[in-house]
Amino acid sequence: MADTATTGTQVIGKGVPRNDARLKATGAARYAADVKVGKREPLCGKILRSPHAHANIVSIDTSQAAALPGVFAVVTGEDVTSARMGRFLRDRHVLARGKVRYIGDPVAAVAAIDEETATEALSLIRVEYEPLPAVFTTEEALAAGASLIHDDVASYQDVAPTNRCGNQRNLSKVERGDVDAAFAQADVIVEGTFSTQPVIQGFIETRSCIADVGKDGRVTIWASNKSPFRNQVMVSDGLGIPHSKIRCVSPMIGGDFGGKGATTIEPICALLAIKSGRAVRLSLSRREDMAVGFVRHPSRSRLRLAASRDGRLLGIEGEVIYNCGAYCDGAAGMSPNCGNLQGSYNIPAVRLRGQSVFTNSIPAGHVRGPGVPQVMFPIESLMDELARRLGLDQFEIRRINALREGDTSPGAKKGVMGKHGLVETIDSTAEYARENMTKSNFKQGFGIACGSLHVAAGIQPNDSQCIIKLNEDGSATALTGMPEVGSGHHIVVAQVIGEILGLRADEVNITFGDTDTTPFDTGPGASRGTVRASHAARFAALDARRQLLELAASKLEANSEDLETANKKVYVKGSPDKSVGYGVLARLALTSPHGAIIGVGAREREQWMAKLKDYENVTAEAIFCTHAALVEVDTDTGKVSVLKYALAQDVGFALNPLTAQGQLDGAVAFGLGYALSEEVVINDGRVANPGLVDYHLFAADTIPEVKTIVVEAPGDIGPFGARGLGEAPTGGVAPAIANAIYDAVGVRITDLPITPEKVLRALKEKEKEKAAS
Amino acid sequence: MADTATTGTQVIGKGVPRNDARLKATGAARYAADVKVGKREPLCGKILRSPHAHANIVSIDTSQAAALPGVFAVVTGEDVTSARMGRFLRDRHVLARGKVRYIGDPVAAVAAIDEETATEALSLIRVEYEPLPAVFTTEEALAAGASLIHDDVASYQDVAPTNRCGNQRNLSKVERGDVDAAFAQADVIVEGTFSTQPVIQGFIETRSCIADVGKDGRVTIWASNKSPFRNQVMVSDGLGIPHSKIRCVSPMIGGDFGGKGATTIEPICALLAIKSGRAVRLSLSRREDMAVGFVRHPSRSRLRLAASRDGRLLGIEGEVIYNCGAYCDGAAGMSPNCGNLQGSYNIPAVRLRGQSVFTNSIPAGHVRGPGVPQVMFPIESLMDELARRLGLDQFEIRRINALREGDTSPGAKKGVMGKHGLVETIDSTAEYARENMTKSNFKQGFGIACGSLHVAAGIQPNDSQCIIKLNEDGSATALTGMPEVGSGHHIVVAQVIGEILGLRADEVNITFGDTDTTPFDTGPGASRGTVRASHAARFAALDARRQLLELAASKLEANSEDLETANKKVYVKGSPDKSVGYGVLARLALTSPHGAIIGVGAREREQWMAKLKDYENVTAEAIFCTHAALVEVDTDTGKVSVLKYALAQDVGFALNPLTAQGQLDGAVAFGLGYALSEEVVINDGRVANPGLVDYHLFAADTIPEVKTIVVEAPGDIGPFGARGLGEAPTGGVAPAIANAIYDAVGVRITDLPITPEKVLRALKEKEKEKAAS
Repeated sequence: MADTATTGTQVIGKGVPRNDARLKATGAARYAADVKVGKREPLCGKILRSPHAHANIVSIDTSQAAALPGVFAVVTGEDVTSARMGRFLRDRHVLARGKVRYIGDPVAAVAAIDEETATEALSLIRVEYEPLPAVFTTEEALAAGASLIHDDVASYQDVAPTNRCGNQRNLSKVERGDVDAAFAQADVIVEGTFSTQPVIQGFIETRSCIADVGKDGRVTIWASNKSPFRNQVMVSDGLGIPHSKIRCVSPMIGGDFGGKGATTIEPICALLAIKSGRAVRLSLSRREDMAVGFVRHPSRSRLRLAASRDGRLLGIEGEVIYNCGAYCDGAAGMSPNCGNLQGSYNIPAVRLRGQSVFTNSIPAGHVRGPGVPQVMFPIESLMDELARRLGLDQFEIRRINALREGDTSPGAKKGVMGKHGLVETIDSTAEYARENMTKSNFKQGFGIACGSLHVAAGIQPNDSQCIIKLNEDGSATALTGMPEVGSGHHIVVAQVIGEILGLRADEVNITFGDTDTTPFDTGPGASRGTVRASHAARFAALDARRQLLELAASKLEANSEDLETANKKVYVKGSPDKSVGYGVLARLALTSPHGAIIGVGAREREQWMAKLKDYENVTAEAIFCTHAALVEVDTDTGKVSVLKYALAQDVGFALNPLTAQGQLDGAVAFGLGYALSEEVVINDGRVANPGLVDYHLFAADTIPEVKTIVVEAPGDIGPFGARGLGEAPTGGVAPAIANAIYDAVGVRITDLPITPEKVLRALKEKEKEKAAS
Repeated sequence: MADTATTGTQVIGKGVPRNDARLKATGAARYAADVKVGKREPLCGKILRSPHAHANIVSIDTSQAAALPGVFAVVTGEDVTSARMGRFLRDRHVLARGKVRYIGDPVAAVAAIDEETATEALSLIRVEYEPLPAVFTTEEALAAGASLIHDDVASYQDVAPTNRCGNQRNLSKVERGDVDAAFAQADVIVEGTFSTQPVIQGFIETRSCIADVGKDGRVTIWASNKSPFRNQVMVSDGLGIPHSKIRCVSPMIGGDFGGKGATTIEPICALLAIKSGRAVRLSLSRREDMAVGFVRHPSRSRLRLAASRDGRLLGIEGEVIYNCGAYCDGAAGMSPNCGNLQGSYNIPAVRLRGQSVFTNSIPAGHVRGPGVPQVMFPIESLMDELARRLGLDQFEIRRINALREGDTSPGAKKGVMGKHGLVETIDSTAEYARENMTKSNFKQGFGIACGSLHVAAGIQPNDSQCIIKLNEDGSATALTGMPEVGSGHHIVVAQVIGEILGLRADEVNITFGDTDTTPFDTGPGASRGTVRASHAARFAALDARRQLLELAASKLEANSEDLETANKKVYVKGSPDKSVGYGVLARLALTSPHGAIIGVGAREREQWMAKLKDYENVTAEAIFCTHAALVEVDTDTGKVSVLKYALAQDVGFALNPLTAQGQLDGAVAFGLGYALSEEVVINDGRVANPGLVDYHLFAADTIPEVKTIVVEAPGDIGPFGARGLGEAPTGGVAPAIANAIYDAVGVRITDLPITPEKVLRALKEKEKEKAAS
């Protein structure tokens, strides 16, 4: 059948160039800030932000700002409803009411004729604050008597007020087997504490939006927001406007990596447009964008592994604490990731805890594989340690313990793990490394790590739908609510539809990301872009195909089961001369009782939800990979150079090998920055390095040679066996690098990023210890 | 059941203000020419048109124009494919190839930096023509040896080349009963010849469009075109671009009245955009718009009626010839209107012929009730004559012969006429006129006419579909392919959806007219806007409602049959406290296996098509009305003043009484212009009065007091019994006025418009005859 085969495919499985490539390469793609509204330039919106990490707002005087010529609107928390908004917990107002909780909390905003006037207006707003004690670390926040960041927490916690973020109905613990017995019986126990830093998503386009209010009172928001439908809900919640009066459009988005799903500036911009009666553009400068969140959650974790002499894991015990900053955003989804401390391994006894904690730091948010790289680092560092303690090969110890079909995966209640390619990624990486990654001097080291990501589901509405209209010449127009954030989802949607309908990908036009026109979608995230949007597209295409065949059956006087499609024709199996073209059928549909062909599809959720029943955590399908790094450490400076890198990834089925490659390459670059160079430096709640000069992304010219190995072990959730692959390959980079450094110079860094200073300090301490012993 | 009741309705049947009212009243509505593309102003497109009515193109030299600084593109027929486009017949190239067929035929076009440069560039294009003999009247065109306008007619006529437009498979004759016998038995025979003039649609917005070509090669066209999907087909046909590479958008349209359905300037504009690589605006001046068509078909008709002494019609015989100008456009649909010469009456013996003829005049096109006012004028003039000959009351003779349920209506094979309100419109007009329209001096006259329109179907794809998405707060977004041309279709669509889903009309947002996003629709036309778009919306709403009830049933643990909806809640019948809100259900849908609620509906065509089987013509449902006019004739000047006017219209069911009223008032104004003042004067193919100063529309201050009487006899095709009503009330105005003039001063004008000169001439001739006798 055309819709399930993954061999002999015509359109999927091919490296079809992206449908947005030409637009982007020529600079013609339109992003939110490019949108034109009417004949006039939009007003310039600007936000006044709190200079205090924690303070009561005593008073705000906007009279001088409002009187400044060229100012069209000044808004404060008084202009918004008392209702709060939020992705997981509703804990934020559009503009602060009563108090501020971090340095950068929006307090007021202005819309003015130009940027200079807007900036001057901000300076004229007088805010009187009453500073409150602030907490910045999770230890401080959890200490007895700590200043409460949210004192009206009843609505999102069912326990007495603390700085714990949410009480996720036991999602933040995973317990299985007799852990104490496992540790008592263990031949070897390894343990450690680890910490990870806040990093940014590193998108090129800063957060931007334009809002306009029609004379009919409808608010339209064009935003760099990957989830127009979530954005609509948040703006509705935050401003008290019904959904039918809000249109959210997501034009092209210049990078997401998790950061474009948090609604922040959009309702402020809408409020300014409403108050001024003019279109308003609110586009953050790089400096502002970086200074106010939503960074990857800094974490602290503690982990212990119990193993037998032959390297078999017996038990695991530990916890991870995420610092979520002043507001929850995605933090409620972090703590369940404690289950992922188990990594890619089958462990009979498990006791893991996770916690997200409010502090007066800038809010943390989603960053490529939210919560996961933080826990891959501990488990893979300890696996390295364990192998060394037992004298086992690094590949072998992972092979011995690898999760296999039927095993109980992290968060599951029983052995429901499906087929996957973990061992194949270990083996293929080992094979490649043996030939290509040998050390050539004593300052070089080789390290590996497995990576896993358990595709999240169930916490939030996570649906995706697709509508396909057949044009009168037989080509197709597909409507998806999923915007294109740069990862290439749209070409994959076009390919899936093309495969099923027998069209070339360029005969499928994609319309996207508009709450007025496209069907519901929560946007790409949690590696579900392809698994959801393309899957919905698959069902919509099958629906359209069924209609095509029915029409063709009556036209050709045949049974629709005896029909096949190819080259935009339906023909009778075995009689290719008995055929009818799509164009003819599409026009026939219009003049027949059938009506135009419209296929509608939602991701088939029954199967997915059934699977979830067997899980007590957010994990349903796992995605695995294996990393290997060859590094060289300069012992004089501590500088680590990555000489060679290999990544084997189980992608299930590469619907488009070109875009898959892009994700793998990008993930390694992303992980290298996390491992070695990136850090948002926050001093007492204030970002010290807001700008790309002082924040060190791994750029194209600093990335080493990367060998990617694509493993295809079909999954059972995505279309045609495809698995999500945008996030999983990120988390394994840091431990692979850390393990390689240990291999090179014998020091284990447990605190990311692994800067030259830290390496040098560790080397000196090691020498000191050596000298002392 | 909520979906069929027309009493006790909540949203339909109410005069809900239009959803586009505020936008239009405040000037905020965006029309095609207002669209902004990118940062630069679009180039100015201009068309070079033929100065000859008929000529071969010997050569075109564009070199000087192309070399003019500021010119970005010059295109001619050489730049287009040899494929032709056309709504009924494909007889037009985008730009003339080989020869020109009317004064105004597009020959070349330029895109330049501004209008002055574009105009200068046009003047630099050298075209060498070889004039050919031209024909302007249908008599000339049909004469033996007449110059052939389309010499390559094989593709659209199955007879030897002539100037007949199409050979519409016997659609242009209606024959039934023994006509010769009827006339032989008749007690009285009345007959006459009639002619009607070309008039414009009189829309405020001239034809305009903007085209832009993306870097991905897709062409987007924003046009004042009421049928974006037809436009897409035409541009595809004319330029040889696949549908998937063309997006047609219809923003707000400033009036249609039939004129915005012909694709003319759009492919030229697209071609200029492709060649220049820039956005191009092509907006016709009023002068150009009026000089090049597409006027109401001028007609000549001949009609005879046979009747018995008691006023019963026995037979009808006659023909109508339409002058369709140089290209077919809608002309192929004109000739079947010969059936409508039968008017609103049951006549046992019928022999009627219709014909459309090519001439070298400007193309004719669709104007409010295409082809129908031309034939209402003869039949209703003769009915008046007949009543006078028999000494019968004008209302009575129409009541005697009125088509009734079960009768054989024009074009039908047998007695399938459904229930309707014709007699009720006659009676209610009579009653009103008796009290309110009495003559007060001897120069005053009273005249009536019935009007009918048989809703067209079957010739062209005439489908309409609707998609409804339920928002997360329970409000709805509806997608319809039907643009808003000013008639208020969108508020009716919102009301129908609101009625079924239990929402207010303002809780239903309408998204429309975009081939990329909305489902297929051919646009409003033939009084089908409400019958189709609202009907499709009804089925889509029922589909969404079914899903809502299913979800609610599981939530409330009840059977969905036991559930009712009101105030955005689903509740158990008899237990209003057992309820669940739409918002809750909409969010539940997202997190349940169901997926977001999307209702899809197409107009239920089975019933419609089944009905068509009984017809050999394009008539399926009839819409009837009765007109009465009280006029005064100034016998010194011939000037006719309309003192009072009454119109009783069977609207089936007034889904929105406010918009229905607007259609009725507008139709009378439209008809008065046709009757008394409007004419596009064409001399040897050249329009002599292109401009609204020399063309006399009936403006608001010249319209008399109009009494409208709404009759509601539910039809069986439209939603909730609604009938189309935009066109039917137009055709009866001219005969009612002509009959009133006869009543006043005893002269019968059979040649529209009834100008003072014609009245005066007739009065003088009458006096001359009187004097002679």
